[in-house]
Amino acid sequence: MKLKHWEEALRLIEGKNFANLGTLMLDGSPQVTPVWVDHDGELIIVNTAEGRIKLRNVTKDPRVAVSIFDQDNPYNKILIRGTVVETTKKGAEEHIDKMAMKYRGLAKYPWGQPGISRVLIKIRPSRISK
Amino acid sequence: MKLKHWEEALRLIEGKNFANLGTLMLDGSPQVTPVWVDHDGELIIVNTAEGRIKLRNVTKDPRVAVSIFDQDNPYNKILIRGTVVETTKKGAEEHIDKMAMKYRGLAKYPWGQPGISRVLIKIRPSRISK
Repeated sequence: MKLKHWEEALRLIEGKNFANLGTLMLDGSPQVTPVWVDHDGELIIVNTAEGRIKLRNVTKDPRVAVSIFDQDNPYNKILIRGTVVETTKKGAEEHIDKMAMKYRGLAKYPWGQPGISRVLIKIRPSRISK
Repeated sequence: MKLKHWEEALRLIEGKNFANLGTLMLDGSPQVTPVWVDHDGELIIVNTAEGRIKLRNVTKDPRVAVSIFDQDNPYNKILIRGTVVETTKKGAEEHIDKMAMKYRGLAKYPWGQPGISRVLIKIRPSRISK
C-alpha cells in the first residue's frame, strides 16, 4: 500500500535537501537534528554512527518524525511520521560515501573516526502530510 | 544565566532561516514541522494558529525541541531543547506580519483565515548544542 504523498517525499529525499529527524530522549522529550537523508524505495534511511544520541534514542523508542523541505523552496515540504524498523552496520560505510557524494561531491566521506562504526537507521513511514 | 551557544542561536534565529520544531503527539510520539522563528532575547517564539497540531501538542506536553541551520550553510546549525512557557494570542496578529516581512518581504501576512486567531508559542531553552 502506497502512502499518500510518498512520491513527493521520494523526490524531496532524492534532492540535495536536508531532513530533520525527530526522536525521543530517554525521558520522552523530543530531540530534533538535521541529517542527510536517503531512501531505498520503501524505507527512509539516515546514516549515523555509534554513540550518537539519536541512535540511542531510536533503540529505546523507535517512533520518529522526519521533516524535509526543498532547500531552494522551503515552502515545498513534507512531514513524515514513522517507526525505525532496523538499525544496522551492514552497508553503512559504503552508504556514508554515497551521502558524501550526494551532499558534498566527495568520493569518500572524509570525517570518519577510527573505531567508530557507521550505522544505518531505516524508517518505515506510517503517515505523510504536507 | 546565559546558556552555552545562546548567542549563536540568536544569530541563526535572526537570519532568514527556518527552524524545525519538534513536539510530542498525544501518544508521546514525535512530530517535526518547519516553522518561521523569532526570539525576544530570552525566549524562542513560533507563530502558529488555533487548531494546529503543534499547538495542541504543546498544550498537552510543553516539552519541545528546535533545530535551526543557516540556509546558506546547513552545516552551521544549532539544536535546542526546551519548554513552552506560554501560548498567547496577545501580539500574535502583529507578530505574524513581522514574520511575513522577515521571510517573504510582505508588509502584511496575506494568508490569514477568518475566525482563526494566530497564537504565539514561547519557548524557554534549557539546553543548546551544536
